[in-house]
Amino acid sequence: MADLLLSSWADRERERITAALLDWLRIPSISAHPDRADDVRRSAEHLAASLRDAGLEHVELLPTASGRGLPAVYADWLHAGPDAPTVLVYGHHDVQPVDPLDEWGSPPFEPVIVDGECRARGAIDDKGQVLYELEAARGLLAETGSLPVNLKFLVEGEEEIGSVHFEQLLSDERERLSADVIVVSDTGMLAPEVPSATVSMRGLVGVDVTVRTAALDLHSGMWGGAVPNAARLVAQLVAALHDEGNRVTIPGFYDRVAALTDPESASLAVQPFDEDEFRRQAGGVPFLEGEAGFSPLEHVGTRPTAEVVGIHGGYGGPGIKTIVPATAGFKVAMRLVPDQRPEEIEGAFRAWLGERVPAGVEVAVTPEGGVAPARTPVEHPYVAALADAITAVWGREPLWTREGGSGPEEALGRVLAAPVLFLGVGLPGDRIHAPNERMVMEQFWKGLVAAGELLDRLGRLGRVGAS
Amino acid sequence: MADLLLSSWADRERERITAALLDWLRIPSISAHPDRADDVRRSAEHLAASLRDAGLEHVELLPTASGRGLPAVYADWLHAGPDAPTVLVYGHHDVQPVDPLDEWGSPPFEPVIVDGECRARGAIDDKGQVLYELEAARGLLAETGSLPVNLKFLVEGEEEIGSVHFEQLLSDERERLSADVIVVSDTGMLAPEVPSATVSMRGLVGVDVTVRTAALDLHSGMWGGAVPNAARLVAQLVAALHDEGNRVTIPGFYDRVAALTDPESASLAVQPFDEDEFRRQAGGVPFLEGEAGFSPLEHVGTRPTAEVVGIHGGYGGPGIKTIVPATAGFKVAMRLVPDQRPEEIEGAFRAWLGERVPAGVEVAVTPEGGVAPARTPVEHPYVAALADAITAVWGREPLWTREGGSGPEEALGRVLAAPVLFLGVGLPGDRIHAPNERMVMEQFWKGLVAAGELLDRLGRLGRVGAS
Repeated sequence: MADLLLSSWADRERERITAALLDWLRIPSISAHPDRADDVRRSAEHLAASLRDAGLEHVELLPTASGRGLPAVYADWLHAGPDAPTVLVYGHHDVQPVDPLDEWGSPPFEPVIVDGECRARGAIDDKGQVLYELEAARGLLAETGSLPVNLKFLVEGEEEIGSVHFEQLLSDERERLSADVIVVSDTGMLAPEVPSATVSMRGLVGVDVTVRTAALDLHSGMWGGAVPNAARLVAQLVAALHDEGNRVTIPGFYDRVAALTDPESASLAVQPFDEDEFRRQAGGVPFLEGEAGFSPLEHVGTRPTAEVVGIHGGYGGPGIKTIVPATAGFKVAMRLVPDQRPEEIEGAFRAWLGERVPAGVEVAVTPEGGVAPARTPVEHPYVAALADAITAVWGREPLWTREGGSGPEEALGRVLAAPVLFLGVGLPGDRIHAPNERMVMEQFWKGLVAAGELLDRLGRLGRVGAS
Repeated sequence: MADLLLSSWADRERERITAALLDWLRIPSISAHPDRADDVRRSAEHLAASLRDAGLEHVELLPTASGRGLPAVYADWLHAGPDAPTVLVYGHHDVQPVDPLDEWGSPPFEPVIVDGECRARGAIDDKGQVLYELEAARGLLAETGSLPVNLKFLVEGEEEIGSVHFEQLLSDERERLSADVIVVSDTGMLAPEVPSATVSMRGLVGVDVTVRTAALDLHSGMWGGAVPNAARLVAQLVAALHDEGNRVTIPGFYDRVAALTDPESASLAVQPFDEDEFRRQAGGVPFLEGEAGFSPLEHVGTRPTAEVVGIHGGYGGPGIKTIVPATAGFKVAMRLVPDQRPEEIEGAFRAWLGERVPAGVEVAVTPEGGVAPARTPVEHPYVAALADAITAVWGREPLWTREGGSGPEEALGRVLAAPVLFLGVGLPGDRIHAPNERMVMEQFWKGLVAAGELLDRLGRLGRVGAS
């Protein structure tokens, strides 16, 4: 890729950019922890300074309705003229919590580069991917004195808590954020030698359920065997969430699941799959299990799921405590596919739960974010430009995949009425949301060059389908 | 009870004894927490000083094989002569953990007396019950200059962690501990107006199970739906532990359950039971549920149970974390009745588990104590002496009950080859092992007087059945 726009520039800037990456990763911008709100703000301010330094303008922190100060960052460069397309780059600067901390090989906020990988919380999800977009803009400005498109950045601070105020922000700032095309930098590809791009992301409905079966924990000798047990109740509920074929038992759950488009089916058919490699990348799981009648690639991309992400009740300390637990809870992350609707699925879950919790048991359901599944029109010329940019950098045409993860992309596309392109360099072994998250640096540098190639191609296409 | 041996003495000593109770309860002797070992030792030293001060001799801390320093306390007074029976009083000075701390109305180790109740961790289980035995001995020595029996105290420091080294201690110290009868002060009665005494305690087998389905937590979007989920697996295991009739599904679990003796059946038949009151005492549980075909009184006393005391896996913090948990665990306290055997039941549990955990999943089972169920011969003359002492103090003959709780009483009776009497003043509403544990002070004073009456009657009976 020596002849591409930003190849030489990126080589010359390698040390500076690497240091900039590590600096930003040191900020523990965990949006889920209320006591990290200052760090999320610090991360936003750090990014704002970097955007200004790169040559972007109108840099501004956009507070959200959270009241907790987890701001998004906006910046733009709008000198490409009215006939050039306007491109909005989306990413996020907040990160996931880091527990279990003792499984990290190095501290999550003391980034290191080992074996060509950058290891830190946020390395790939998503600071690393935002940074190569930022540096691509800086590089084009440095090399050519201008950009081929009108460029906007919108980098969120609440993505890891379900982008709870993001749609409101999009609505409030619709004019400033208006764009002809959106580039999302928060996804992955199948393998370095099998480049791919996402054309759909799953939606997400999170629910937190707590039950209380008594005013307080009871002595298991005095009361055990005669009174309800909250820990047992949540176990029964979680166990009942799937049937023997690993199908979700919530009535109506699958009603709106749409069939794949033809290009997606074609990509799925040729997508390489090696079960041993898949299991190895998944941290060495001893076997695979999923919805009966579908393959693992379908399980993680094209099918909806209901994953219990936590279950907690009663005593968990050393030794044993002879109690009947009075309270317990569990959390479920339901991944949705087109055309499932978050509000319908949350309602269906509540109805399912209501059928199963005995009368008299106190039950509280807290929704944790609701994100609709997103779909990109595969036939759009801008999607062809993305394919072309990826081909130029990775040397091979991308396959179209569905990303199993979830994000605010559906809202972006819907509210801003623009197609959403996914340029993402993550790999299956990147341990996203888990200890020892990493980014493969080779993918980072390719991402930087590809971001430049994409802006160049979008600029040459001009405004397509502008209303 | 004004004409009983210790009534007037106890009245005169009321302030001193109350202060002594509060002083001891201030020591957080939680045996389950490794970092509280010093406090358990402090509790032992405090008790040793009190025993010496009361007139007991040969006071000594007995270390156990734990290596953690959770000593038992021994003391004796052996001047009643060779024809007087030797009575060993058993209790324990360690206490349960205190979480959830935020449900306590006052701090667990800052004892208060409110509405005639002493509220603190250990108030009834078991410091309060040890103290009235100690004060009864002091009172008899003060009032009469001697005791009617040869008296020994053995107060354990590891009861709340399953008396893991207690049988070893009994074997090692068999000669010094030898007795004609054992008096256990660690149980309860049905109600202040329905005095009762235990003739059987359930055994206990605790198990801690952890499973690992992957090397680390996985992103629920990338892998969810295709890989095993540790939290779901433990939920399935816990849910499978009982059938629809709330019967334990472990093969062979009920094989050795013996029928009740006639006096026990007779007591059970006349034992008052008010479901509303029972539910209120159980912290206001919304309903009762237990093994099909048996009553609540049978559930908590005469039937074996398998209670999940904790279940933990995945994310439990604020909000949601979109992971597939890699590890999870649960703890089960199985209460055994005569003639179930702990080692058989533990083996049956392991076999049950082995059938249900898929190959490739790492599973670890840690046994947490094993206590056989205990049974007292109801027809023994010493049991009649206990009934008589209770009748003298509470004004009504006691019913015979089976205690749902578990303790080292089976080992005491077996190793020391002596009948075990249960003089206990706990009440169903005492919140044992739970927040806001209490002791009703009226029961404490009655316990003190009854302890004196019992020693007096045992002294008059002489050595019964001595070999």
